[in-house]
Amino acid sequence: MPTKQAEPKKSDLQLTAVLYALSDETRLQIVKSLVKTEEIACGYFDIDMPKSSLSHHFRVLRNAGVITSRKEGTALMNRLRKADLDERFPGLLKSILGAA
Amino acid sequence: MPTKQAEPKKSDLQLTAVLYALSDETRLQIVKSLVKTEEIACGYFDIDMPKSSLSHHFRVLRNAGVITSRKEGTALMNRLRKADLDERFPGLLKSILGAA
Repeated sequence: MPTKQAEPKKSDLQLTAVLYALSDETRLQIVKSLVKTEEIACGYFDIDMPKSSLSHHFRVLRNAGVITSRKEGTALMNRLRKADLDERFPGLLKSILGAA
Repeated sequence: MPTKQAEPKKSDLQLTAVLYALSDETRLQIVKSLVKTEEIACGYFDIDMPKSSLSHHFRVLRNAGVITSRKEGTALMNRLRKADLDERFPGLLKSILGAA
């Protein structure tokens, strides 16, 4: 279970960390799924890889501030921090998702 | 000396490789210098780090297709592949450099 400390505040978002988080096909796929919806539980992603690997990818996205996660019962619900990213890095998410 | 093979063709540029190449402060600094000029020799960059480390960063940028390099005498001249990047990933470079 991630702690809230692992998610940077909007003012602490780092461009290099965001670019690194998005420099992986699996993580880009997660972000593309999240951009279409409000919130998705980790378990709903149709990605064929071990749970530990998937958890790693979610953690990288979370630590970079690309997604935020909250626990609901036993599920971890994930949301894209679109507003924060758009405010800090105007046009970045759009250009990346447009090219992905 | 890099071989031409190390530089991907425009059609082979990979978004994830480009994002990875730009996910580092030193490499972003190199790209920001290159966007302002036509061509720069490696030796002209005012970056305080061992030559081998700097060479590594240039190689990552070159292999990802962010820059192209050519030998001129004993100097390696570097150029940003702006047109190729803008065509393959519209708006990406602008949004990254605007945020960097």
